[in-house]
Amino acid sequence: MKTDTLYQHGTLALLVPGLLTGTLTMKELLQHGDTGIGTGEGLDGELIILAGKPYQVNSRGEVHVVGDDFTLPFANSHFADYQPLMSVESASKTDLNQQILELSGLQNAFFSIKITGTFSGVKTRAVAKSSQPYKSLAETAKQQSVFTRDEVAGTLIGYYSPQLFDGIAVGGFHHHFLADDHTFGGHLLDFAAVTGDVSIQLFSTLEQHLPVDNDDYRQHDFAQDNIKEDVHQAEG
Amino acid sequence: MKTDTLYQHGTLALLVPGLLTGTLTMKELLQHGDTGIGTGEGLDGELIILAGKPYQVNSRGEVHVVGDDFTLPFANSHFADYQPLMSVESASKTDLNQQILELSGLQNAFFSIKITGTFSGVKTRAVAKSSQPYKSLAETAKQQSVFTRDEVAGTLIGYYSPQLFDGIAVGGFHHHFLADDHTFGGHLLDFAAVTGDVSIQLFSTLEQHLPVDNDDYRQHDFAQDNIKEDVHQAEG
Repeated sequence: MKTDTLYQHGTLALLVPGLLTGTLTMKELLQHGDTGIGTGEGLDGELIILAGKPYQVNSRGEVHVVGDDFTLPFANSHFADYQPLMSVESASKTDLNQQILELSGLQNAFFSIKITGTFSGVKTRAVAKSSQPYKSLAETAKQQSVFTRDEVAGTLIGYYSPQLFDGIAVGGFHHHFLADDHTFGGHLLDFAAVTGDVSIQLFSTLEQHLPVDNDDYRQHDFAQDNIKEDVHQAEG
Repeated sequence: MKTDTLYQHGTLALLVPGLLTGTLTMKELLQHGDTGIGTGEGLDGELIILAGKPYQVNSRGEVHVVGDDFTLPFANSHFADYQPLMSVESASKTDLNQQILELSGLQNAFFSIKITGTFSGVKTRAVAKSSQPYKSLAETAKQQSVFTRDEVAGTLIGYYSPQLFDGIAVGGFHHHFLADDHTFGGHLLDFAAVTGDVSIQLFSTLEQHLPVDNDDYRQHDFAQDNIKEDVHQAEG
């Protein structure tokens, strides 16, 4: 079991023009890890995989476990082997990310972050599934629901990608969240404070898998897309 | 043996500020393929791997087989499983690259190109090894030798990388060359015409390995580098 490899299916860039066809099954994704994040076909919700179980937060805020045949246009997974980094008390999102980078010194590496603890002032989002013909990410992301909780115990699974890889992956931090009681979660937009345990897992290798059998992907001209701008507006 | 995976050690971007320490041995590179290209520590010549044998063209134009302990800052390898694409007669470099893209339809995929045949009006280059403290790619690339042949029989090994990955890999085509008689080769700058057989190998996966244990890489701030400009000037 390779714990030094981060698997990625698709690239962030292909979401920008709306190449949202599910080109990998959950079964396939889970062959590359027991932990991960992603989105479904048509930006169908926000996925978080914990201990081999894939949870989807849909645009109504509901959390469901998805089946093996659920398909994804973009996702990450890896086999968990986190190492403790630090404990935090009432750390803001900005402080947390900064402390992780300073302590780890891994600004130019891919790594995953796992935090278990209590989060306050939490804001998540989940996008509503769209159907073909897909619109651009900028358009589709408008159909997102935002959910908030004053205080919630749960798990954050995030990835950090070097800025060099921005557009391929999400440059910087990208966090998903799932409440312990499975009643709340999604793409983590913000939180005011977290108290809990932070662990990280360094990857020496990014296994970048592309949907080379998908005609829309093969034929698309990415030169016309404003990849970095659109992505960071949508991921905000 | 995975023939659908392209292994890459380092990224093109790390050459720009002069992170030229050899962070992978040839022995390790050959574990990921029997075919490939790369450069040695300090930009020590141009490498081409054919049938498991790593040839180096140094800045005097000499071709040597390098040993297992030869180290590289940036290299690609894969296990050869080329499929015939076409035969060409007196095709220019521009025409060749265009025909390959049109016939294969693989503009958004990583693939390798192998051409055996006779090349005329050939121009190759090899950079001279520099030592620490390393200068930038722009500076080091000035210490390159250019070699020409009116006509030579040999093998071209090249890679095509999607423009999305420009800066990580060399966006577009990147060809190395070795003459059948091993008296000529290097990074292929240009040729007037080639007559021979063209085969390609499609990869669904880029296995991107980063030198995460190298302190200079870990600490470098890439935000200050003009990666794409400097790379394409030097790779020209």
